[in-house]
Amino acid sequence: MRQSNLFTKTNKKPPADEDSKNATLLRQAGFIHKEAAGVYSFLPLGKRVRDNIEEIIREEMDAVGGQELDLTALQDQNLWQQTDRWSDEAIDVWFKTALKNGTEMGLATTHEEPIPNMLTHHAESYRDFPVAVYQFQTKFRNELRAKAGIMRGREFLMKDLYSFSRTQKEHDDFYEKMKSAYKRIFARVGIGADTHYTYADGGSFSEFSHEFQTESEAGEDTIYLSTDDDLAVNEEVLSDDVLEKLNLDQDNLQETTAIEVGNIFPLGTKFSKPLGLTYTDKDGQDQPVIMGSYGIGVGRLMGAITEIKASEDNLLWPESVAPFEVHLLRLGDSEDVVAETRTVYKTLQGAGVSVLYDDRNASAGEKFADSDLYGLPFQVIVSEKTENKGKLEVTFRPNTEPAYLELSELIAKLANTQHE
Amino acid sequence: MRQSNLFTKTNKKPPADEDSKNATLLRQAGFIHKEAAGVYSFLPLGKRVRDNIEEIIREEMDAVGGQELDLTALQDQNLWQQTDRWSDEAIDVWFKTALKNGTEMGLATTHEEPIPNMLTHHAESYRDFPVAVYQFQTKFRNELRAKAGIMRGREFLMKDLYSFSRTQKEHDDFYEKMKSAYKRIFARVGIGADTHYTYADGGSFSEFSHEFQTESEAGEDTIYLSTDDDLAVNEEVLSDDVLEKLNLDQDNLQETTAIEVGNIFPLGTKFSKPLGLTYTDKDGQDQPVIMGSYGIGVGRLMGAITEIKASEDNLLWPESVAPFEVHLLRLGDSEDVVAETRTVYKTLQGAGVSVLYDDRNASAGEKFADSDLYGLPFQVIVSEKTENKGKLEVTFRPNTEPAYLELSELIAKLANTQHE
Repeated sequence: MRQSNLFTKTNKKPPADEDSKNATLLRQAGFIHKEAAGVYSFLPLGKRVRDNIEEIIREEMDAVGGQELDLTALQDQNLWQQTDRWSDEAIDVWFKTALKNGTEMGLATTHEEPIPNMLTHHAESYRDFPVAVYQFQTKFRNELRAKAGIMRGREFLMKDLYSFSRTQKEHDDFYEKMKSAYKRIFARVGIGADTHYTYADGGSFSEFSHEFQTESEAGEDTIYLSTDDDLAVNEEVLSDDVLEKLNLDQDNLQETTAIEVGNIFPLGTKFSKPLGLTYTDKDGQDQPVIMGSYGIGVGRLMGAITEIKASEDNLLWPESVAPFEVHLLRLGDSEDVVAETRTVYKTLQGAGVSVLYDDRNASAGEKFADSDLYGLPFQVIVSEKTENKGKLEVTFRPNTEPAYLELSELIAKLANTQHE
Repeated sequence: MRQSNLFTKTNKKPPADEDSKNATLLRQAGFIHKEAAGVYSFLPLGKRVRDNIEEIIREEMDAVGGQELDLTALQDQNLWQQTDRWSDEAIDVWFKTALKNGTEMGLATTHEEPIPNMLTHHAESYRDFPVAVYQFQTKFRNELRAKAGIMRGREFLMKDLYSFSRTQKEHDDFYEKMKSAYKRIFARVGIGADTHYTYADGGSFSEFSHEFQTESEAGEDTIYLSTDDDLAVNEEVLSDDVLEKLNLDQDNLQETTAIEVGNIFPLGTKFSKPLGLTYTDKDGQDQPVIMGSYGIGVGRLMGAITEIKASEDNLLWPESVAPFEVHLLRLGDSEDVVAETRTVYKTLQGAGVSVLYDDRNASAGEKFADSDLYGLPFQVIVSEKTENKGKLEVTFRPNTEPAYLELSELIAKLANTQHE
């Protein structure tokens, strides 16, 4: 894309009304726009990042047999009364609204009720299970205080998958598959080494749930990390009993703050029973369906990547999620430089590389400032100097020392580092 | 996809609580699920159709230079007070909700206010214009009565594009481009011949807006069609004055009911002025920005395609939007038939054809009933009979007379009819 066509502009100064690094930098760079406290719109560059994250998640959900659907945000209160969760005491982040006739409707905080209810219309025999369905859907949560930028918004895009199994073993096997899928997702978006499988509270019906916690000062959770086993325990369940059960020694655990970037949750029959989701076994007997839920906040994950990778002043994107792989800067406007930059732009695009081409009539200083703030993984410069050398000046962020490459060498390099 | 893996099931009987053909058939076929009156979720087959429509629209919006973003559903009432549209008298389909502190928020009925407000943060000089931005975003409309199935829901996915121009001429030129883009969209989704450019009410600030109206008994609008000119006039603006202006003779007009599948609307400075969206011209003077809005309800368009193409009993999808191009039915379970069907499935997939493969152990009657209801454009049968012939039995819907083709002939045929 030619940068002269991009309608968003960067700001020289960060916004003063944000208390998180992610929202501060993403707004300064024009990736997002603040509509209200905890309510952020995604502008073209931000949407490209979020779309890339979404596509990686989608590929992994399809790979475990998930079927994609899209439920609504408006929810019928009757479903929630069946599970005793309609009241603001049961779910303290409800947003509610009302039809013209006064009937109250809920705005989706989760789809743990609507999904199994929908499934009762489609699955009833043991032959119809197991089932795994997922969606990328907007959730609304009426947080008392909005903070942490796009990591805890009042409206956000979430991937939620729900599994429906006939036996505990079938559930456990799928749960393990999802655990592996989640590990692949966090590795692919570039935070695998910082992200740990964590034992957490299982609610009233499971011993544990499991979280994926990314080490970060910006995190709201405290976890105790066992680096030897690559697992962690959330502070909320840390006890002698739990340590013994997990065969961990408290002295070897390292306390750290972390961001919960995903969770997987055994739900047992908590929702399927009151909502009447059963299956008929081979002997014609009704059996309860065992559920699991598996969430990733797409915006939160983007916020976590920002927190981990960005410096205090500038964004920095892993290649797999960057809005563009290459930021091509034209410095100077001589005929040679203009022609050469255009050739580089066209050739890279032809090779399937996504390029943001800064073709603006702006000073080198402005171009560098924007380029640093955007933090695309490859910066490629064409100038009088590179023209004289006959090579391109290429910086592989976060390195700051440039390499000088011919166009064909750059393309080979990009092909080698290209994400899956 | 193997049909045995598809979790949705068809119903032998249509639902009794729908008054529209589209929701009746789409629910019977398991394409959508009714959450509440006027609130429909999209299940895998329905989502695939809607995604295909979305992708066609996206390509055409990108082609006219639209930049994609994604605004929120939660909206700050302050913006709407600036344009005097916060009250339920001004917008009679508001859904509202409230933060914990009591502050009321709106749920998006449109983004005519938030989009120009966002743009004030990014564009101020004549160099920053023109701009065109668009999104596929969930809208909420508190309709008094829900009817017409997915054509008039209380929650629905909408493509809305907004244009921002410096001069009336610049606006008019873009408006013409959008008109052409809309014509291409409706042609590509298969209803071009039934859809007419229609003069409609322009509100208090424009003489006309323009609708794209698709002839259908299920339509809620009445239009007067001039087949010679391929244009129409909405009943709401039909007058001697208007006929004279458009050089039309009422005697040559044909009255018909129609579904509004798209609209394009010159907004002038109605929103930009109160929201303070101006640009500085070359002489340093502030000038008002001229806006246009351009909407297509993606679900409504899917509903309109259903109304136009489906019979009373069965769906029928144009190839460009069908959830799968080919419905491959295996009739019988002899080793030869099973092996041959698998070969056809793999070969078609390898050729880039999307296939729903009915591999279930179900009767031929059940398979045919489901296949007819789903209405995929190509039905391909492998059975003992076709094995003996050495050819596949292929029906090109809506034809009912089968052709007998070799696999290579089928692939060639599919390549020829493949959508853009």
